[in-house]
Amino acid sequence: MSRSEFDIIREFFANQGLDRSDVLLGVGDDCALLQVPDNHVLAVSTDTLVSGVHFPVDVCASDIGYKALAVNLSDLAAMGAEPAWVTLALTLPQINNEWLKDFSQAFFQLASHYNVQLVGGDITRGPLSISVHVSGFLPRGTGLTRRGARAGDDIFVSGNLGDAGLGLLLHENKIVLAPQYREVQQQALQKLHRPTPRVDLGMAIRGIASSAIDVSDGLAADLNHILNASACGATINIDQLPLSKGFMQLNGQLDVHSLAMSAGDDYELCFTLQKNKLNTLNKLTNELGVKITKIGEIDKKKGLRLETQGRTVKLPRIGFDHFKTT
Amino acid sequence: MSRSEFDIIREFFANQGLDRSDVLLGVGDDCALLQVPDNHVLAVSTDTLVSGVHFPVDVCASDIGYKALAVNLSDLAAMGAEPAWVTLALTLPQINNEWLKDFSQAFFQLASHYNVQLVGGDITRGPLSISVHVSGFLPRGTGLTRRGARAGDDIFVSGNLGDAGLGLLLHENKIVLAPQYREVQQQALQKLHRPTPRVDLGMAIRGIASSAIDVSDGLAADLNHILNASACGATINIDQLPLSKGFMQLNGQLDVHSLAMSAGDDYELCFTLQKNKLNTLNKLTNELGVKITKIGEIDKKKGLRLETQGRTVKLPRIGFDHFKTT
Repeated sequence: MSRSEFDIIREFFANQGLDRSDVLLGVGDDCALLQVPDNHVLAVSTDTLVSGVHFPVDVCASDIGYKALAVNLSDLAAMGAEPAWVTLALTLPQINNEWLKDFSQAFFQLASHYNVQLVGGDITRGPLSISVHVSGFLPRGTGLTRRGARAGDDIFVSGNLGDAGLGLLLHENKIVLAPQYREVQQQALQKLHRPTPRVDLGMAIRGIASSAIDVSDGLAADLNHILNASACGATINIDQLPLSKGFMQLNGQLDVHSLAMSAGDDYELCFTLQKNKLNTLNKLTNELGVKITKIGEIDKKKGLRLETQGRTVKLPRIGFDHFKTT
Repeated sequence: MSRSEFDIIREFFANQGLDRSDVLLGVGDDCALLQVPDNHVLAVSTDTLVSGVHFPVDVCASDIGYKALAVNLSDLAAMGAEPAWVTLALTLPQINNEWLKDFSQAFFQLASHYNVQLVGGDITRGPLSISVHVSGFLPRGTGLTRRGARAGDDIFVSGNLGDAGLGLLLHENKIVLAPQYREVQQQALQKLHRPTPRVDLGMAIRGIASSAIDVSDGLAADLNHILNASACGATINIDQLPLSKGFMQLNGQLDVHSLAMSAGDDYELCFTLQKNKLNTLNKLTNELGVKITKIGEIDKKKGLRLETQGRTVKLPRIGFDHFKTT
């Protein structure tokens, strides 16, 4: 079988069913030519997923295709940006039609949902890895950064925390659940492999939240980025952490609060809000139908403190760092 | 030793000595925020280099850092775009300070030369590969595509062809040159590892050339992209191919013309020009001090024909395709 890069692009990546008017020249030349709307700035982010590092080697192609785009859209969401374009650099050990079909279908399904057009890329031979670069728009002068949190702001997270972390433990057979937890297991794996990028929420809280970040490396680690960038501290009440019903059933078997604080991959948004904006926020999130939960407050005193029932507690592990060896 | 992704970014990628005013928010948040100038469009391109595929496994870090950026700038050059921003997704098997220092220094040296600012990226653990995404500007309505070649246009290439291909044969010990060819060898390896992206030439011929592409996969393969996109054919006189003096010395030992037609990695520009624009072109290239050579002409008849002294010839090998298995 002889299949060239061009054949692969033609067969699996040419017909994405999207034709944005701001893509003046798409896939197929040396560059794509793109038009940013007047009075808008460009928000860009790039993330690589490596097989065996960011996802277990046995994850199916469609989950990889979905997640490679989802984690990047999540970065746009954390900025409040409206997604527009994506490029895909795909490195494959060999050509497998079935794999490519599943990968590209899941990738494009998510892309279509957010009206994101593939405008370029690269397919190369090598150990499986996927580099995605997304671009989106922000009206000039807007945007959610990590820098704006101030003492007295409330801290919120969207959705639930810990499910993806549980999913990873399950996928890697580090824990095994009894048969009655089958639904819990499925839900956790779904959250691990198919996280929802909070794009609509991010755009809705632009201009309202004082800072935001997406929870990719674990709440504690990611909130710390906000605290460092904003030169402040925070107190989190771990009893308020939003945990799914299924996940809560494992309390006692697992340290659910530690997992919720430190496991990555949930791709929820963590954001801060001045107290006088709570009504505006509640109205918006009701309209969107997105669950948000207040989990704590920004303090002047540096550092991240965790409380339960008035007591300060410590958690065993903070975050996830690809190169941490000690 | 414990080194996190954040430490690496801080030590090797934070101080690039560039602070473009159109970078509203650079490295360190979920996204970078960037301002495209009014009345301009964005040109973007992405390319991945995988160790053992795009460069031999024993290439030094500084050559990798240089080339990863250079091949992407070459895509902007082929579009006539002015380089502006870059993101870097770096996958490393382990943390080696010496390697990171050499890589980042060479990367930033080239970036500074073209006023290109690093605005984001990702450092992950895995088999060595480098994904670079570059962005540049084009005044609205301009840009060199592959589509504009017309019968009667002259075909030009910049610089010399074949040196990088020779460099690869030498680097991989597929041929060995006698000691008197030491200078030829050095020049060929230099061209392989440190190609000059023809950014200034690309910008200069914008609005003058009728089509353009960069020679990354070999002249025959790349010119064929122009012919396909422009729905025309071409005749190349292989006696007119620009070959360096040193490379020409190997004529007889090597099929220099085949190598010049089919070897990749030269990163010269190949472009087409209406005959009445020759004077304008010559004036511009004289000012830039870039050598250009007419190598043939665009025909109505589809396909690529090669001639020498009035005879049609065939070449043994066309281009380079990462997945070609037959």
